[in-house]
Amino acid sequence: MTIETALSALSALLGDRLSTAANVRDQHGTSEAHYLPAPPDAVAFARSTEDVADILRICHAEDCPVVAYGTGTSLEGQHLAIKGGISLDLSQMNKVLDVVPEDMLAVVQPGVTREQINAELRATGMFFPVDPGANASLGGMAATRASGTTAVRYGTMRENVLALTAVLADGTIVETGTRARKSSTGYDMTHLLIGSEGTLGIITELTVKLQGIPEAVSAATCRFDSIEDAVNTVILTIQSGIPMARIELVDEQMVTGFNAYSGTQLPEKPHLFLEFHGSDAGVKEQAEAFGAIAEDFGATGFDWAESTEARNALWKMRHSGHYATGTLSPGKRTMATDVCVPISHLAEAVVLAQTERDRLGLLAPIVGHVGDGNFHCGVRCDPNEPEEMARVAELSGILADCALRLGGTVSGEHGIGIGKMKYMDAEHGPLLASMRAIKTALDPKGILNPGKLLPPGNR
Amino acid sequence: MTIETALSALSALLGDRLSTAANVRDQHGTSEAHYLPAPPDAVAFARSTEDVADILRICHAEDCPVVAYGTGTSLEGQHLAIKGGISLDLSQMNKVLDVVPEDMLAVVQPGVTREQINAELRATGMFFPVDPGANASLGGMAATRASGTTAVRYGTMRENVLALTAVLADGTIVETGTRARKSSTGYDMTHLLIGSEGTLGIITELTVKLQGIPEAVSAATCRFDSIEDAVNTVILTIQSGIPMARIELVDEQMVTGFNAYSGTQLPEKPHLFLEFHGSDAGVKEQAEAFGAIAEDFGATGFDWAESTEARNALWKMRHSGHYATGTLSPGKRTMATDVCVPISHLAEAVVLAQTERDRLGLLAPIVGHVGDGNFHCGVRCDPNEPEEMARVAELSGILADCALRLGGTVSGEHGIGIGKMKYMDAEHGPLLASMRAIKTALDPKGILNPGKLLPPGNR
Repeated sequence: MTIETALSALSALLGDRLSTAANVRDQHGTSEAHYLPAPPDAVAFARSTEDVADILRICHAEDCPVVAYGTGTSLEGQHLAIKGGISLDLSQMNKVLDVVPEDMLAVVQPGVTREQINAELRATGMFFPVDPGANASLGGMAATRASGTTAVRYGTMRENVLALTAVLADGTIVETGTRARKSSTGYDMTHLLIGSEGTLGIITELTVKLQGIPEAVSAATCRFDSIEDAVNTVILTIQSGIPMARIELVDEQMVTGFNAYSGTQLPEKPHLFLEFHGSDAGVKEQAEAFGAIAEDFGATGFDWAESTEARNALWKMRHSGHYATGTLSPGKRTMATDVCVPISHLAEAVVLAQTERDRLGLLAPIVGHVGDGNFHCGVRCDPNEPEEMARVAELSGILADCALRLGGTVSGEHGIGIGKMKYMDAEHGPLLASMRAIKTALDPKGILNPGKLLPPGNR
Repeated sequence: MTIETALSALSALLGDRLSTAANVRDQHGTSEAHYLPAPPDAVAFARSTEDVADILRICHAEDCPVVAYGTGTSLEGQHLAIKGGISLDLSQMNKVLDVVPEDMLAVVQPGVTREQINAELRATGMFFPVDPGANASLGGMAATRASGTTAVRYGTMRENVLALTAVLADGTIVETGTRARKSSTGYDMTHLLIGSEGTLGIITELTVKLQGIPEAVSAATCRFDSIEDAVNTVILTIQSGIPMARIELVDEQMVTGFNAYSGTQLPEKPHLFLEFHGSDAGVKEQAEAFGAIAEDFGATGFDWAESTEARNALWKMRHSGHYATGTLSPGKRTMATDVCVPISHLAEAVVLAQTERDRLGLLAPIVGHVGDGNFHCGVRCDPNEPEEMARVAELSGILADCALRLGGTVSGEHGIGIGKMKYMDAEHGPLLASMRAIKTALDPKGILNPGKLLPPGNR
């Protein structure tokens, strides 16, 4: 019962779909965030649910860790093989299996990416709304309960997955949920798997809800003299019930990054990036209602992106945030904070983030899906500089404490992985013991993504 | 370790808040559905989360079954004490603890009823949307993942609960979720408890989302020559993306019941009962779009309820469905089917229900939250007549098979309780073993609502 014996059995099963090549292992063990590389002992490429079941049966028998891999864009090290074992690469399971326009749903394999599903849906008049920025795989997005810019209108992966096929630790194939819009038949295993970060099962098929492409879409940017003005505009907009499709905060440091990365010339002030969806009349009504609120808080420089091209350019720029921060301090990495608070406390949290960032002398552009109360500091740092990393950890801890004090959560959408485990006890307390009991019940040998999500400890 | 020793300890703890009076036990062991009475050995009245924790600690130590009780309106026997033990009555925990308009949420105790919360919210301009018809308790609604007439627009309890306080089998108090709109911090214990029917924990506090009262509300009824025409109207309405606030099917048998119970004189034809929410312009637009579809399917007799009084009368009539069926065959009971199918298959399922009902010679008015693909046959029956109950079971089985064949679920909103356990294996297959593992992990002694939700068996 060793990783070595597992690899021989897997090699016999998969042939050249099991790779121990250094470059393949390195690629699967590298993070876009600040985490140090942690390559697996081998990478197994699955092509079907049955492949995944066969692989898990072997790993279960041999006590070999299994870490699911989609696109490697997770930001808390979820896909790193910190305990060795195999990286289970699902990127070849990338077929849209079924599109059912009359029920507004699609069935996809886990390696299908957000951009791919929307490209394949283009002729149908429908789209899949969840948009975390990265061109992530839908399996990975479900596993981390991802959301992003459109969650304020359409919800997160939590609200947009109807059913899953998954393989449990011992290789058992299970199906959760149905194609019906609701159900009351027993424990909600779909939602238990969503956000479980590959620690309870490997998602091999997803039934997702689709949305009709709105009759009218309009996007805009505007700027403010202070971040409080921008955030107070957001708070009042949400409280007024304006059904924003997107409402994103971008602080002045992030604007500097965008200008450097995307060649834009936005004034270096706090901005809101907006999108309105609806009928022609509805979009006009929403934009006017928003504009009235924003002007009360001193918004200027409204720049409307009416054409599809202009909108795509706007959101491409916004989605480049993670990479654009890189231009601000080449050679460093990005540690992203991810707190989410009740909307009424958003200004307090954002202002604290900016104040503490400056006090700690950190470069950390702030961007946020602020309609949900969720924002990130993209803290630039060098993982090999302990003193700097201590300041980074201090900022992260201050924001986590702040979020919990305000009734919020330490992670709105990035998940726990390795990086946020230290806050799990503070957020969940005695509930952690129940999470551990479930983990033990469903994965008694602890082979699924070991060392993630649940911190070591007794409760 | 007996129920008897548990009752002495509980009596010492609770004094006269532990009752063994026959009338109290009988009231807690009686169902509005067709189930035979199953009174508990005693009824414990809790007034706080700490009370519930103390009670569970005793019951856990003494292996005494605990069945949560809110209003006793569950329809699958969820609150019946089929294994004896105590009924844990939460109806005195009926305070709205906090209303936070700026975050559109409220914190309530589990005994707060749907009508009570909306009465207490009246001055705020907000309302709690989930409306199962019965004046159920919010704790019970969460425990059975209830929904009802407005779920088509606002979602079910699944979408409307942000956070819970619950007491686990051993008396541990846990808190799930936060006041933030989204979170990615570990297993989704909120959704695991929602729909768990008191088998994993006792809900003692709920943080629920509120909605702004729409600027305009308009309701209407219209009728059709055939049930297919009514259902096809629904299908096209939903597929067109008209954001119906309610769209309810009422068949001709149900109309007969309403006329007898409510003194109305509706023509005995299939009806749709409708409600539109939005701005003045939005409601007008929605109503026109719906009207155009309905007229294509031969709708006639549009009757608009514009005033609050007229709307209340309309929905009071609709909500009386369960009782109105009683007028059709006094002395009998009602067994409600509850399948939910993808909207594209709704006509097939409803027509099958009507055909099979008639073939089996059963009186069973059909009503449904058809915008969700969910409908009920309120099958009138006498539980002491085995031959009739066999026909009732046949109809129920035919509809369950049909729902699963069409990609749906055997219960849209009533839950499993005792009555739908027989379909759990067909709907969930190997996933049942995972549900059992979770039950064992969180309630190893099996004291929480034993004999419900999970059927006996090995997987």
